[in-house]
Amino acid sequence: MAAQPSDDEVERWGVFERRFSAPEPERPLDTVLTVEFRHGERVVSAPGFHDGAGEYVIRFSPDAEGTWSYLTRSAEPALDGHEGRLRCVPPAAGNHGPVRVAGTYHFAHADGTPYRPVGTTVYNWLHQPEERYRATLEAVAGAGFNKLRFLVFPQGGGHVAHRPDRFPFARDADGRWDVGAVDVAYFQALDRAVADLLATGIEADVILLHPYDQGDYGLDALSEEEDAAYLRHVVARLSAYRNVWWSMANEYDQMERPEDRWDRAFQVVRDHDAHERPRSIHNWIDIYDHNKPWVTHVSLQNGFAVADFGRALLYRDVYRKPIVLDEIKYEGDIPERWGHLSGPELVHRFWVATVSGTYASHGESFLTESGSLSIVEGGAFRGESPPRLAFLRRILEEVRGVGLDPIDKWDDTTHTAGVPRVEYLRYLGPSAPARWRFALPQGVTGERLVVGDRFAVDVIDTWEMSVETVPGTFTLTTVERNGARADATIELPAGRPLALRIRRVG
Amino acid sequence: MAAQPSDDEVERWGVFERRFSAPEPERPLDTVLTVEFRHGERVVSAPGFHDGAGEYVIRFSPDAEGTWSYLTRSAEPALDGHEGRLRCVPPAAGNHGPVRVAGTYHFAHADGTPYRPVGTTVYNWLHQPEERYRATLEAVAGAGFNKLRFLVFPQGGGHVAHRPDRFPFARDADGRWDVGAVDVAYFQALDRAVADLLATGIEADVILLHPYDQGDYGLDALSEEEDAAYLRHVVARLSAYRNVWWSMANEYDQMERPEDRWDRAFQVVRDHDAHERPRSIHNWIDIYDHNKPWVTHVSLQNGFAVADFGRALLYRDVYRKPIVLDEIKYEGDIPERWGHLSGPELVHRFWVATVSGTYASHGESFLTESGSLSIVEGGAFRGESPPRLAFLRRILEEVRGVGLDPIDKWDDTTHTAGVPRVEYLRYLGPSAPARWRFALPQGVTGERLVVGDRFAVDVIDTWEMSVETVPGTFTLTTVERNGARADATIELPAGRPLALRIRRVG
Repeated sequence: MAAQPSDDEVERWGVFERRFSAPEPERPLDTVLTVEFRHGERVVSAPGFHDGAGEYVIRFSPDAEGTWSYLTRSAEPALDGHEGRLRCVPPAAGNHGPVRVAGTYHFAHADGTPYRPVGTTVYNWLHQPEERYRATLEAVAGAGFNKLRFLVFPQGGGHVAHRPDRFPFARDADGRWDVGAVDVAYFQALDRAVADLLATGIEADVILLHPYDQGDYGLDALSEEEDAAYLRHVVARLSAYRNVWWSMANEYDQMERPEDRWDRAFQVVRDHDAHERPRSIHNWIDIYDHNKPWVTHVSLQNGFAVADFGRALLYRDVYRKPIVLDEIKYEGDIPERWGHLSGPELVHRFWVATVSGTYASHGESFLTESGSLSIVEGGAFRGESPPRLAFLRRILEEVRGVGLDPIDKWDDTTHTAGVPRVEYLRYLGPSAPARWRFALPQGVTGERLVVGDRFAVDVIDTWEMSVETVPGTFTLTTVERNGARADATIELPAGRPLALRIRRVG
Repeated sequence: MAAQPSDDEVERWGVFERRFSAPEPERPLDTVLTVEFRHGERVVSAPGFHDGAGEYVIRFSPDAEGTWSYLTRSAEPALDGHEGRLRCVPPAAGNHGPVRVAGTYHFAHADGTPYRPVGTTVYNWLHQPEERYRATLEAVAGAGFNKLRFLVFPQGGGHVAHRPDRFPFARDADGRWDVGAVDVAYFQALDRAVADLLATGIEADVILLHPYDQGDYGLDALSEEEDAAYLRHVVARLSAYRNVWWSMANEYDQMERPEDRWDRAFQVVRDHDAHERPRSIHNWIDIYDHNKPWVTHVSLQNGFAVADFGRALLYRDVYRKPIVLDEIKYEGDIPERWGHLSGPELVHRFWVATVSGTYASHGESFLTESGSLSIVEGGAFRGESPPRLAFLRRILEEVRGVGLDPIDKWDDTTHTAGVPRVEYLRYLGPSAPARWRFALPQGVTGERLVVGDRFAVDVIDTWEMSVETVPGTFTLTTVERNGARADATIELPAGRPLALRIRRVG
């Protein structure tokens, strides 16, 4: 019996990594390595991956404290039968665990800390020169965004100024991509990107496939089997990072594949992901059937859905999953209407999304010096919306509950979301009236308002980023079937883009 | 060899019926009778049903002209091995065949004639005294509605003034419903209702189950097996009528059954329906997953979705099936807000549904003399909306194409649906401006507008039910990515609830 190595120590939800050497095979992707991790009666099977030059790697993120043992399994003798133990210790400060769906329509970290996505998008971030890569990371973190959407494969076609130095695979003798001939440095850069985001508290919304190849590289034309090999590799490589989300594709329906091929791609990701990271897919014209069981949350492109009230909330009912409007048009200055929203308009749309019980993502489409777009290459933000979105994120993080749900979906004329009888957020739109008579909607679910309930009111200027508490409290005097009132009228700075936060205090 | 009986003659899409006698068994529902109908190489298997006192019936609606042969199959010798032939002749005038989904979001009869649902609802129609039953039929037909939603099982609880004389089943010794002891007269009244609707050109939207029993009868508390026996019976009985639609339930989610029980109920209906009639299910708070393959079209309750523009069209994208908003609140005078829409408001909602590329259903909730509601017991219509909805139906039937689709789903600020480059319907809302500068949206799919395209314009008053053609024609002078314009401004009767119909003439 071999000597027992001393236990490795990993924090809960951290990344445990072990590397194994093996003779380099001809087709390294065909060498299957799986590791069984045991914690008491529980067994979690995690796939390993090839990391070049005779190196195989296993990464695992333990979700429970205490001792885990592991045992490798492989048809390759050099990789088979390795045993070991790891000691999972409490998470460090700031490690709240991976994000999961919570309260049907919302998200929370594994330790229960709510997570309110206010993300942004830099598609071709990975494929920029080092300086711009770092500038983007700093910009995203500095602006307070907590999710970043980016592509694994490089973007081609228009708006792309910088061609990538590296590609994910080598080409074979016929010039075809050989997905078995992985460029390890390419994928190590992907590891680093995810780790860099983790270190700055940002969720990595990893876009696995995309149609923006435009014949430049041909990475959108892999066969289904080649896609699957690639997906298995990326999932084995990244899923131990607790900030990973899988976006199967951007504008998936531009790729003109049958829907069931996407179903199977989802299943490959689901079946190889020992950590069950969030999974979705982003649309162009045709929306994928997000009711399918492997979709954890809904990622949508539709700016129109949050251009006015009463729309985005309809998506909640049809999917009963969190709705993330990952593309609602961009703040920018290009002629296309998807790329020239004003800052105030984009901020307005985020607030509409918020009181619709949904989430939205940011992006900038300013033309950059290189002739590219911010949304493609990144760099410092130029728009007016980022600080206002950081402010919105703060407001969302102060919500006293799992998330904001529209209170009266049957007649949402008050544009109010909240936690019934606890807290309400009412958005008055881009130009508030001069006064507001205290009234709250009563929905059909959740706790009921009753006469005598007492509330405090904050007036929030969504653009000036101010929160002013109205002096005094307000007591309900009338409660009817669909709403409640207090005998009070609150003066407002007319014409401002305001929201009201109404919290019960007694 | 037995003498060949002379062929029965049935028109295409008509109802062929044959009755067979058999010794009355103890559990008549357990006696399975199926009939194989052959037409050339094609075989369609149709179930028969027990119709009381030793009678078994087979009904079949042939969808192809020419000779069909049939052969009965049953474990009961008296029902087994009957052979015969029927000659299917061309349909009579006015028989356009059953309604099917057409153009993804719309409907058409089997002969290609478009069907634009403008339906109404009388839940407890079947369970009224004869005089009121007939008055309702006349009212629905006279008003020009072309679909009627009604319940098979009687409604209980509030708002129900007339208790039914008959029930679908007898009770057993313990007072439980015995679904095998069918009250044949009850179901023959259902046959007659469907046939009466067919004779007046109205689709029968048969609501198979509902939660409005309120403990009065217990028909909402049958077991899954009992439900299935009932469903098989009703499907075998009614599906040969070409005007039948199956609504699995009204407000299905008030019945508090697991979702998969509904899935299985859908499958029972699908698997026993030789005629593949339209299938859907109507919701209260939780929307059923209409993406499931056995749902042919989407039946929704949500008046809010058509209270303003830009909402209902979102449902199209998520389901890619026809959207019928079967409950959008009612014109009426009761205090509940679902039951006191004004006539103009209900008509407005229908027009919003129309330019959203969806359909809606009508209902009245006036308090009746008996203390019931129009929506429950029927009778003459009292509201102002029915003639305006008949007018809308006429406009819909004049559409030159499979149906109206929103032209620009990404930014539907013009509230325009149509058939690209053929015809456009633009709804200006309840209070039109004084003038309209000629402009049309350009979508991303379908035929493209080009400079020189020439149009005629009709101004439609949705309340006065008038169509006035604007003198002259209008020629496009500018076509941009998202829209086109002619150098013309049309004066309008400001403040009226107007729509514009814009048809290409050159």
